[in-house]
Amino acid sequence: MQHRTAREIRHRNRFDVLRAVYAADGSVSRQDVATRTGLSFASVSNLIAELIEVGVLVELGHDTSSVGRPRARIAVNPDRGWLVGVDIAETAIHVDLFDLTMTPRRSVDVPVDPAATSPDDIADLVAGAVTELVGGDAVLGLGVSMPGPVAPEEGVSLFSPYWGWRDVPVKAMLAARLPHRIHLDNPLKASTVAELWFGAGREVGDLVVVTLRSGVGVGITVDGVLYRGVDNSAGEWGHMVLVPGGRVCRCGRRGCVEAYVGALGIAATLREIDPDSPLLGADGLATVAAIAAASASPTATAVVERTGQHLGIAVANLVNLVNPRMIVFGGQVATLLGESILDAARQSVADHALSEVSLRLSGIRHNPVSLGAATFALEGFLADRDTFGSVAALRTKTTT
Amino acid sequence: MQHRTAREIRHRNRFDVLRAVYAADGSVSRQDVATRTGLSFASVSNLIAELIEVGVLVELGHDTSSVGRPRARIAVNPDRGWLVGVDIAETAIHVDLFDLTMTPRRSVDVPVDPAATSPDDIADLVAGAVTELVGGDAVLGLGVSMPGPVAPEEGVSLFSPYWGWRDVPVKAMLAARLPHRIHLDNPLKASTVAELWFGAGREVGDLVVVTLRSGVGVGITVDGVLYRGVDNSAGEWGHMVLVPGGRVCRCGRRGCVEAYVGALGIAATLREIDPDSPLLGADGLATVAAIAAASASPTATAVVERTGQHLGIAVANLVNLVNPRMIVFGGQVATLLGESILDAARQSVADHALSEVSLRLSGIRHNPVSLGAATFALEGFLADRDTFGSVAALRTKTTT
Repeated sequence: MQHRTAREIRHRNRFDVLRAVYAADGSVSRQDVATRTGLSFASVSNLIAELIEVGVLVELGHDTSSVGRPRARIAVNPDRGWLVGVDIAETAIHVDLFDLTMTPRRSVDVPVDPAATSPDDIADLVAGAVTELVGGDAVLGLGVSMPGPVAPEEGVSLFSPYWGWRDVPVKAMLAARLPHRIHLDNPLKASTVAELWFGAGREVGDLVVVTLRSGVGVGITVDGVLYRGVDNSAGEWGHMVLVPGGRVCRCGRRGCVEAYVGALGIAATLREIDPDSPLLGADGLATVAAIAAASASPTATAVVERTGQHLGIAVANLVNLVNPRMIVFGGQVATLLGESILDAARQSVADHALSEVSLRLSGIRHNPVSLGAATFALEGFLADRDTFGSVAALRTKTTT
Repeated sequence: MQHRTAREIRHRNRFDVLRAVYAADGSVSRQDVATRTGLSFASVSNLIAELIEVGVLVELGHDTSSVGRPRARIAVNPDRGWLVGVDIAETAIHVDLFDLTMTPRRSVDVPVDPAATSPDDIADLVAGAVTELVGGDAVLGLGVSMPGPVAPEEGVSLFSPYWGWRDVPVKAMLAARLPHRIHLDNPLKASTVAELWFGAGREVGDLVVVTLRSGVGVGITVDGVLYRGVDNSAGEWGHMVLVPGGRVCRCGRRGCVEAYVGALGIAATLREIDPDSPLLGADGLATVAAIAAASASPTATAVVERTGQHLGIAVANLVNLVNPRMIVFGGQVATLLGESILDAARQSVADHALSEVSLRLSGIRHNPVSLGAATFALEGFLADRDTFGSVAALRTKTTT
């Protein structure tokens, strides 16, 4: 019951209206929004009036091209302020500045010095990059993705798989360095919320978003809402046991999904097939890139086939437990291998899954992690009492 | 978003109020219900007034034992009508008649003739048993549990693992034989809803209920509501792949969880340890019963240990994906082996699960499948417009 109180319903409806405007990729009429959301025209009009009042939406004039009464066109106001998305990864920190249409306008990449990865080092790097990128401009919110389990409410990184941090108050450390409102989560949750707002979530509410990078994991959505589990750690699919007693995973356990379908796992499969393969690169992702580039070769084909069989079983397992409508694949490994890895997985999914599911690559072209982190900041801005304080009078008239 | 409209919120709140009354195991004050549900005293008073109006609750007089204004005691009205729960299993059909306090009052078991298992045969058996049990008494609803995947809205058994049925309209076939309102679902969903209303769900909203019988599977609850997935097939944990290429499962696939922790799987483990063991019985459940009875013997200990290791990995996999607060174990296998199987699983759960979870045996003493089936009928009765038609005027004053 994430949406039980009148206030929560109002937030959810506000999100839905704004998602419908984003989905139009341009401008939209109130009637279009009502059709897409299933809300009444009166509710939509009230919610749009609020969003116009606070400057999130603008009215662009009337559409006179169709028959009947001219309909006002509504669009997101790009000039309302910036949202910042930060993707903290093992070797680099990527920061994007989005306008309110969620178009990335400025970006910066800052390499992480492997010898300077204390919490203070990383907080300094992030704060420096954000300050450089933002300048003096108005920021509506800052979203940060930190690998590993995270407690979003408390803003704490519970464990960092790369740097061994435990219980680091990342949000408080950044808040001491930056004036912005900060939202902390991890790459799985960020990619999933990006998919919900700007990807397959526009058509399907019950998704699983599989992220295949060095680490792997999933995000689950239920009826258009991110499912977190009781400790925000739902979706740790990467450390489900695929092969009992199998390969040692980076996490120290044996036989994890990640040890077979993450970048290092794929490199390990290549090494099993050909220990001296010229496709073996400096790290897992370089190896996956080489396999993708040599996709016609028998070795590359064999690696993709074998990886697809493992991926298919691991995907079937989540289909059997969660029963989603669709599974969307993103992350560098999915981007590099493309449809070939899905094709290789399909038979094994069909062999093991009890219900039907469609598999597709994510259509999000931008980094889904920084986009998703910025989307958390957008959701925070939209749910903030301060943002809508001036429209309290209007709000009481809103039908929910 | 199972609860987005005002009507859905009202149903949910009505369920919560009634669950709070059941949880009191006797009578309760309006203030107790407000405390337990988190609803306002005004909402609770309105919802209780509706439930008294339709005869579900009764006022028992005032409690003058405590300091302050005497509080009216509220209880479920046992005489309002019967709910029927039907557990269709491979070898027998079990039917319970519950009064509205959900106390079983009359029961009947009807053996299934292995030579007569057509849909019409089974529908005749169920209808005969229900008619015999009910007599001419008022029935508020009839819930039926049918093994295998089921489409509850359509009332169709999509596939029966025992009898090979496909797409059988069980609800319509029973409706042609019985005058009652019928609800169809499967044992996993029924056990879970029983646990939600009458078991651990009284304290914990985010549960996984593991059913270990001949077949095994789970039910997932999210914030006090059964999670079904898009086709009602979420929870097919029994056919997740535990050991790729492992034992052949009854479903024809290899390495399924059920092939290791279901009754037949446990018998197979015993046979691996001692092919001539005197503990091997006529069927899987008889063997599990013999193992339980010989629990001190080295062979039985070894079987329970090995089964616990498999169970622990399979449970850790669902913890990593779903991140529930608690896992509750029920079904004959859990009942027979008791705490010993949980003890055997705990280390393996701890080795593989990334987040904390508590494991416990179900405290439901009655058959959870027939109780859950009857609970679906109760939910249907409470959500029925006809039931509350006469209190429409009252309802408009209800605060949600």
